[in-house]
Amino acid sequence: MNSVETFTHPEPSNGGGNGAANRAVDWENPRVAAILSAAATCFARKGFSATTLAEIGKELGLRKSIVHYYFASKNALIHEVQSFTQKRYLEKVKGSLSSSDGGTKQRMMSALDSLWGSLQDNRTMVGLNIEVWAAARRDPELRKRAATLQHDARALIAEGVADVLEIDAKDFPPMEALSVLILAVLNGLAVAQELEGEKDAKAKEAYQTFLYLLRLGMKAMETPAQKS
Amino acid sequence: MNSVETFTHPEPSNGGGNGAANRAVDWENPRVAAILSAAATCFARKGFSATTLAEIGKELGLRKSIVHYYFASKNALIHEVQSFTQKRYLEKVKGSLSSSDGGTKQRMMSALDSLWGSLQDNRTMVGLNIEVWAAARRDPELRKRAATLQHDARALIAEGVADVLEIDAKDFPPMEALSVLILAVLNGLAVAQELEGEKDAKAKEAYQTFLYLLRLGMKAMETPAQKS
Repeated sequence: MNSVETFTHPEPSNGGGNGAANRAVDWENPRVAAILSAAATCFARKGFSATTLAEIGKELGLRKSIVHYYFASKNALIHEVQSFTQKRYLEKVKGSLSSSDGGTKQRMMSALDSLWGSLQDNRTMVGLNIEVWAAARRDPELRKRAATLQHDARALIAEGVADVLEIDAKDFPPMEALSVLILAVLNGLAVAQELEGEKDAKAKEAYQTFLYLLRLGMKAMETPAQKS
Repeated sequence: MNSVETFTHPEPSNGGGNGAANRAVDWENPRVAAILSAAATCFARKGFSATTLAEIGKELGLRKSIVHYYFASKNALIHEVQSFTQKRYLEKVKGSLSSSDGGTKQRMMSALDSLWGSLQDNRTMVGLNIEVWAAARRDPELRKRAATLQHDARALIAEGVADVLEIDAKDFPPMEALSVLILAVLNGLAVAQELEGEKDAKAKEAYQTFLYLLRLGMKAMETPAQKS
């Protein structure tokens, strides 16, 4: 990491499409990653306004000044922690995808299972997302970043689905709407689980219903040749 | 409805299992309704912690003491405003439903269109919901109430769908999962719209895609007799 860049862009995770172009916060730095991870835990637990930089440091046995050295302000940390958490989630999804095999429908379903399973393993991210949605309503910068991250996640879903279906996402107009829908289902069911608890929310059953409907949709899309 | 029942359950929408048995707040009182409506606007605009009872009163030209007369605390108001707002939303949906006509599939689609359309007309409720989801993560009482409201909304969706399909919801196990899914789609798309704005979120297109998948699901459910 070059120090001038660090200095001039203390937290620029909001570049172009995915904003990583002129990133200065170095996620590869183990201490930065540890601070971001601890911040995610604290923010998800207590919300943004009730969490202090000192508390985040305390989680790691670090003084506040050290947290401050890497992140100029709590806002800088709030903005960064979202991208960091989402990126880790998507990496996990990608990891479990690479091992999937089988026919088109099977791979599609296994991709969607991964999205779901990884979400279940990342309750901190779910909590953090809900905090961000609320805070973004009063913080235009946070909202812009959250919108970019939503957009990135959707693009990745569309890409993954197109890849599995062996089509070009650009040639298939419903793909964008479909990826918006998939992300909405994941977010909406995550909210239900947070509010009602895993058992009462019946979120898993609802997701299975969604996958069933998607299978019907894929079947309807098939050409006669594919069907035989 | 007999009057004893009316007396012991002043708010029937809060009946079974949701702790409203000893409700005292009278939604029929115009002043109470006005306070709840103003509170919804203020909470959705600034969030719970930044809103004071005095500000809510100010919206109506009332002194804080008058708001206090009806609601012992801000918390009491927060808890009540959710149920009030959701009930008004569901009434709107029911109103637009009663006018729908046509075959089973048509009525189902028109019911789902109403759910969506009324949500678009109730951005205050959407904002309020997001605030509640975040606050509920740290307030067990709020969470319990939010869970109950989610549960009520789902039950109402299941009932509506069963009614349209002319089946008994209890005899059709996927109904519960389906209603969880429908509510999740509405909530998830509302979040996307809040973050990305109506145009960028492509929420309407995503909802249309969902309705298309549901139509396929209904078609798959049809008996040969219905198909002919």
